[in-house]
Amino acid sequence: MRLPDSFYSTVRARLADALDVRGLDGFLATTPADVAFLSGFFYIATERPVYLWMPREGDPLLVIPRLDEEYAAQQGVTVETVSYFEFPGVVTAEQTLGAALAGRAPKQIGVSAGLSIGAYRALSRALGGSTLVTTDAVAKLRLRKFPEEIPFHEAAARICDEMLGAGRELIADALRRGTELPREDEIARHVIGFGTDRMYADYDLVVYTTKLAGGLVYAGPNSALPHGLPTRRRIRPGDTLILSLGAAVASRFVESERTFVVGEPTAEQQRYYEADQEAQEVGTQAMRAGRTCAEVNKTCLDVLRGHGLGDYIRHRQGHGIGLQNHEAPWVEDGDHTVLEPGMLLSSEPGVYVPGHAGYRISDTVLVEETGPRRLTGYPRDLASNIIEEVR
Amino acid sequence: MRLPDSFYSTVRARLADALDVRGLDGFLATTPADVAFLSGFFYIATERPVYLWMPREGDPLLVIPRLDEEYAAQQGVTVETVSYFEFPGVVTAEQTLGAALAGRAPKQIGVSAGLSIGAYRALSRALGGSTLVTTDAVAKLRLRKFPEEIPFHEAAARICDEMLGAGRELIADALRRGTELPREDEIARHVIGFGTDRMYADYDLVVYTTKLAGGLVYAGPNSALPHGLPTRRRIRPGDTLILSLGAAVASRFVESERTFVVGEPTAEQQRYYEADQEAQEVGTQAMRAGRTCAEVNKTCLDVLRGHGLGDYIRHRQGHGIGLQNHEAPWVEDGDHTVLEPGMLLSSEPGVYVPGHAGYRISDTVLVEETGPRRLTGYPRDLASNIIEEVR
Repeated sequence: MRLPDSFYSTVRARLADALDVRGLDGFLATTPADVAFLSGFFYIATERPVYLWMPREGDPLLVIPRLDEEYAAQQGVTVETVSYFEFPGVVTAEQTLGAALAGRAPKQIGVSAGLSIGAYRALSRALGGSTLVTTDAVAKLRLRKFPEEIPFHEAAARICDEMLGAGRELIADALRRGTELPREDEIARHVIGFGTDRMYADYDLVVYTTKLAGGLVYAGPNSALPHGLPTRRRIRPGDTLILSLGAAVASRFVESERTFVVGEPTAEQQRYYEADQEAQEVGTQAMRAGRTCAEVNKTCLDVLRGHGLGDYIRHRQGHGIGLQNHEAPWVEDGDHTVLEPGMLLSSEPGVYVPGHAGYRISDTVLVEETGPRRLTGYPRDLASNIIEEVR
Repeated sequence: MRLPDSFYSTVRARLADALDVRGLDGFLATTPADVAFLSGFFYIATERPVYLWMPREGDPLLVIPRLDEEYAAQQGVTVETVSYFEFPGVVTAEQTLGAALAGRAPKQIGVSAGLSIGAYRALSRALGGSTLVTTDAVAKLRLRKFPEEIPFHEAAARICDEMLGAGRELIADALRRGTELPREDEIARHVIGFGTDRMYADYDLVVYTTKLAGGLVYAGPNSALPHGLPTRRRIRPGDTLILSLGAAVASRFVESERTFVVGEPTAEQQRYYEADQEAQEVGTQAMRAGRTCAEVNKTCLDVLRGHGLGDYIRHRQGHGIGLQNHEAPWVEDGDHTVLEPGMLLSSEPGVYVPGHAGYRISDTVLVEETGPRRLTGYPRDLASNIIEEVR
């Protein structure tokens, strides 16, 4: 499960240009997503620092804990690697980096603004003659996905759609058999297990990411809390339920979320569902190169407001997706980023009616030259998402 | 699943003292663990900031995204709460905080060194007249667990030990039935499901933490990589396997890890196992108030070195555990923290033989006045951890 070498060489060439423009001698990657993006090394983030030095010219250098040496080799990482023994260490990760860079003497080192104050200080002490400067060089590079990344997002999208089907089927099967309906937490475990299993079946080396396959499942009043956790509440006939699922192949994320109704929908359920579906359709179609995130978000949420549901909005239309399940740009009023081909976004307006239920439909959408393309394809119309009671 | 109010009032009184000593007007908590520690509010960490203002005098204030308002209420959070609509927002989280604090005019605000440079800048801009100063006030308070926290760690320890039993039983059952042995990923899913189910069965409101129940399972050569991921490799007779499990109740973490051998151990397996068990026993008994982390770590790892296994060491003896599964202090050569009653530590020396297997035994250990007390109690001797083949 590795991206082709051509991806890494393209990324490095583009980074070198970006550093040149900014007058930086190199970029020091300090987060799992940036390190994976630039080197293909994936690791479990702990307090043990990992640093990837990407000079404008010359060879990259990876600093990892001793613990991860064999794991990096197994992943086929080709970047020159030095290790420190442990955290905090008699010789720290920062000192190890400093010693390795001593002969190379970079003056201006770019870092992400996500770096902690503590790490910034430790690095500044260890890299005596260098100045650390925050830069958006890598953040900008990650905004538009590279062609080599798309198949991985597409693979994750297929798994995610199948997870939705597996969740729906668990409930449908219980209805057919006349057995007890599953609980929220049982459905969550079932679909996550299904997705993880698909991942392991399809790929030789499943690399660590913050999530292989994950999800939230909530029904009835619980679904009105966008960030609650699945509970032991059993699904009941008449329930609205949301399956909010995500998956990542080679840490390329996707989300696919659908709302289902168990049995014949009431007029109320139909109203909220169809308003949300309309907002999602209009908002998704608005995701075109040249428009700003803020404009797209307003176009989408105005559909809900137009239906008199403004009080039931709890969040923006969506967010960027890539090596993180949430990343820039943000499809929200405060983000004026202009959409460009290659950007990958969630489109997920929601309607949350306290005490009743929540309604959310989310696709992962690629902005292409010709318009938006949904990578996730599970049916979105209400008729398809009624889980029939059997009499 | 809430700690008693007495816990929060004690913590606040202790924090006020610590702020007083440091000349700070308050502490601004910016991480999920610090916010949960000080207020009892648990949330899914995303790019949407959560800020908890803890003044030296007066009432705390919580700033959360609109999305989490109902979730906070469900958790019974009693701190005064204001919300901002979304990230990045037309009015940002930082500006919302700034407006709410405008009348209170704190001069010196303590923050954790884990705060990002980006957030530091946004906060500094939004809190005009205030200066942000990094402080260890809360980190120090979290070093020694409070009496009210211990029952939650103990509850997590029981679940963790039972997860080990469930994993072992999955393999033993297949051996008894003569069916195919499970794969690493199947065992991992089984034990995580078991632990999560126990959590939901025992508690009304399971709050979000970075992990409810989790684990790594690796056997044979895979187990020689401390941070690899479970694969689809099936367990085989003769395998060494590690179950590395963790759980958190009310986000109070514990880990319990054991090594098993399938069938009669070879002399080689016995040698590595018993050396690791001896190091774990000696290292655990060394976890006494008054000794430094570095001394304890050396005492522990010297046992492995004494057995000629120094080349197979990949990591320190252990780390602190609390609201995070890894937190200070670090039981490592570079940490000279003096152990005190109330500190909670993992004791987990490991032996990793490339191409053969890994051996690790981990308990979660509470430093008490009278000596170390293991919260986890799964058997540690080799005889108990042989999973018998049935002929």
